[in-house]
Amino acid sequence: MQKKVNWKDPKWKTGMRISLDYKNMMADSIGKGYGITLNELEKMAAKAKRADKALKKDWRERRVGFFDLPYQGENVSNIKSFANKVKTDCEAFVVLGIGGSALGPIALQTALNPPHYNLLTKKERNGCPRLFVADNIDPAGFEGILRVVDPEKTMFNVISKSGGTAETMSQFIIVRDMLKKRLGKNYKDHMVATTDPEKGILRKIATDEGLETFPIPANVGGRFSVFSSVGLLPAAVVGIDIEELLAGAAYMNELCMTGDLFQNPAYLNATLQFLADKKGKPMSVMMPYADSLKDIADWYRQLWAESLGKKVSLDGKIVHTGPTPIKALGATDQHSQLQLYIEGPFDKVVTLIGVKDFGAEAKIPKAYKEIGELGYLGGHTLKELIQAEMLASEMALTHNHRMNCTITLPEVNAFTVGQLLQMMMIQTAFAGGLYNIDPFDQPGVEHGKQYAYGMMGRKGFEGKKKEVDEYIKKAGSLKGYAV
Amino acid sequence: MQKKVNWKDPKWKTGMRISLDYKNMMADSIGKGYGITLNELEKMAAKAKRADKALKKDWRERRVGFFDLPYQGENVSNIKSFANKVKTDCEAFVVLGIGGSALGPIALQTALNPPHYNLLTKKERNGCPRLFVADNIDPAGFEGILRVVDPEKTMFNVISKSGGTAETMSQFIIVRDMLKKRLGKNYKDHMVATTDPEKGILRKIATDEGLETFPIPANVGGRFSVFSSVGLLPAAVVGIDIEELLAGAAYMNELCMTGDLFQNPAYLNATLQFLADKKGKPMSVMMPYADSLKDIADWYRQLWAESLGKKVSLDGKIVHTGPTPIKALGATDQHSQLQLYIEGPFDKVVTLIGVKDFGAEAKIPKAYKEIGELGYLGGHTLKELIQAEMLASEMALTHNHRMNCTITLPEVNAFTVGQLLQMMMIQTAFAGGLYNIDPFDQPGVEHGKQYAYGMMGRKGFEGKKKEVDEYIKKAGSLKGYAV
Repeated sequence: MQKKVNWKDPKWKTGMRISLDYKNMMADSIGKGYGITLNELEKMAAKAKRADKALKKDWRERRVGFFDLPYQGENVSNIKSFANKVKTDCEAFVVLGIGGSALGPIALQTALNPPHYNLLTKKERNGCPRLFVADNIDPAGFEGILRVVDPEKTMFNVISKSGGTAETMSQFIIVRDMLKKRLGKNYKDHMVATTDPEKGILRKIATDEGLETFPIPANVGGRFSVFSSVGLLPAAVVGIDIEELLAGAAYMNELCMTGDLFQNPAYLNATLQFLADKKGKPMSVMMPYADSLKDIADWYRQLWAESLGKKVSLDGKIVHTGPTPIKALGATDQHSQLQLYIEGPFDKVVTLIGVKDFGAEAKIPKAYKEIGELGYLGGHTLKELIQAEMLASEMALTHNHRMNCTITLPEVNAFTVGQLLQMMMIQTAFAGGLYNIDPFDQPGVEHGKQYAYGMMGRKGFEGKKKEVDEYIKKAGSLKGYAV
Repeated sequence: MQKKVNWKDPKWKTGMRISLDYKNMMADSIGKGYGITLNELEKMAAKAKRADKALKKDWRERRVGFFDLPYQGENVSNIKSFANKVKTDCEAFVVLGIGGSALGPIALQTALNPPHYNLLTKKERNGCPRLFVADNIDPAGFEGILRVVDPEKTMFNVISKSGGTAETMSQFIIVRDMLKKRLGKNYKDHMVATTDPEKGILRKIATDEGLETFPIPANVGGRFSVFSSVGLLPAAVVGIDIEELLAGAAYMNELCMTGDLFQNPAYLNATLQFLADKKGKPMSVMMPYADSLKDIADWYRQLWAESLGKKVSLDGKIVHTGPTPIKALGATDQHSQLQLYIEGPFDKVVTLIGVKDFGAEAKIPKAYKEIGELGYLGGHTLKELIQAEMLASEMALTHNHRMNCTITLPEVNAFTVGQLLQMMMIQTAFAGGLYNIDPFDQPGVEHGKQYAYGMMGRKGFEGKKKEVDEYIKKAGSLKGYAV
């Protein structure tokens, strides 16, 4: 279990600093013709400076808000006192949210609470409720959540900045109706809305019906919202120290103040990933060697893909850009993906994430000493084994001239996780500048949404419905392509 | 919930046949220059015929065993009677396994049992035990499983064909020691080994110590083992109808008997994926629109990556081959990955998996009729919404000239899941022939393992330990590449 420490102690903070080792991205380590040269990296300095200036300007002028989230003051106290009320009243806390509204809460929960949290006793959960995140609209899946919670002892947290998210608002309508039928007008004591502070349908509904609310600042988009009320409220409810989390994010802000490419971990990692992509490695694998970090890889997958996957017009030419983030898990995926990473095409870069102190060792007792294939294991620990395997994978990748780098967390706690997530967000925002794209929009998904609106009979989308009908008609003429 | 049906009824079987719609892989649908032409596909016939012949020969001559798994007879009855004993005696069943030994059991459980299964009451679980799969060696993660089970009411299923898998055998040693301390020599009533029928260390240990065992046929490799005891024993324990599962696999065998490329769903899909890769789409996304199928995508990820990711010598030249499988989940990942899939580079092909009947609807009550952004939802169901969104994604991909195809399951039951998994295995084995590689080995991972053996002090790997020391020394000289 996590040791209690004082994240306000500067010495402890320095000891808890996360680090990036990128030697195996470089030709010096993995071989000429395979890696990046120091010269290539240095040549990026001018471009990096421009990207740095533009990003800091966006921050100063409040177009980009995630940098400011570590310093929320009053909202943090509001969240903490609401979370305490939930802890007293509720056995379960259910997030209704999709995309950034789900991935942030899930990543924090997996990282900072014990495994199989929902199976623990309330005492083992330090008196905190169970957590469920309804991040899909599979009817069996959604009904499956409602089956295992008692609505009268549950708080439902609907998260949508605009209030127009079809998936989340459908869930909201279902839950609201169910609660009203069981609890009458007390239904509103079981719902809390996280949404835009002023605009949008959900804000209006919450005001009209008297639901408790928490704000998502207007200049913070879904995938950059983990340190807004979106991530903080669920985290506080399940007992995560959200102040320590924000302190970690603030610390990363400090480390990333410099415009010097070689001193700034987020800028440096963005630049390395950018160069790798330009060198024919469009896939970026994130492979933590710790169960607790696996959903951070999933969170990052949205951040990197949705921010950088764009169609842009550059010098009058249409360009389709964006590396593909891939999540993996060590040591598990050594028995699934490593064969491909080591022997397959030179088309990916692997980021390993290591943990020094797991807060557990899992000692392997001495046994089968006479059997060569097993005897060597006794006396070691699972911690030693997973760390040896991580180094072994790093070596195998390097030996096979595969670009890889390593991020190390001294331990997995709210302070280091705060750093890691903030670093990824800064890295992504900065990478937008390197790719010459806007990392904060997502125009491509709008199109598909409109077809769905048309099919569901939403007013104003009759034209889209017509397109659907035409598509189905054309599909009929191509039905030979099926088996 | 799943309807009770008779999978022996030929009419029902035909109605439950899964289908592949590949029109959007074709230039006829997504546009000239973007898709595959009928001519290109037809030209593959000769190559396909050779691959078919080679594969069927491997089957006949018993080098490849997974085709025969649907017809196990006696082993199935043994598994069923052992599973019944476990159901009576145990509250939990814990798989100790990694790679194929974990992915198969997990995929079956997620597909065929209700969500949040471990949180249901024993009655809701039809009297079956909880299921845990220890598929990693994270010390906190492993101790986390041991914390939530009562060893005296738990059966531990150690799965390793050779018995030499370091991760699994370490877990085995830990659990065996713990059980011995608590139960003395009765420890063996709480362990069952799934391993090679004759060879290997685990077979020897099981024989010496009198553990119950189940066989993995010698000609069945880990990633093709889901229908051997590896997948069947855990499945039977949690109440899955393993005979229906095998009937589905057998049905797919029948459908794939033909060597005619255009009639054989597995061959056809392999060929389409192969051509897509050759056309500069090295990434293959599997995106089911059903929570229940998400771990099948993860299982497939091992199958496709480890089978096809290979370094081979062709005409005296070293070639690195292998597409990269990527798992996604609809509708969830529309809010994460779809932006990249639609606007990013033309470097991937997306396989959507749809379900016609979820066994649930999740009705959305009428509400907020006066609000345009929400009013249209009421009266529909979550099932309609997820299906509309899936078609919308298909259309958006197609409109943007992105190769995609759709697999449809009439419903998710043991018979359709049996078909789907068997189709994927045949497809993969056949693809090995198209790529001119051996889909059944994994030479690349051996290298990394040996470094780990060296670090853990295994005899015979002192040379590898020396390599590790040298690597660390060299790393010291490159420590400037860190921040």
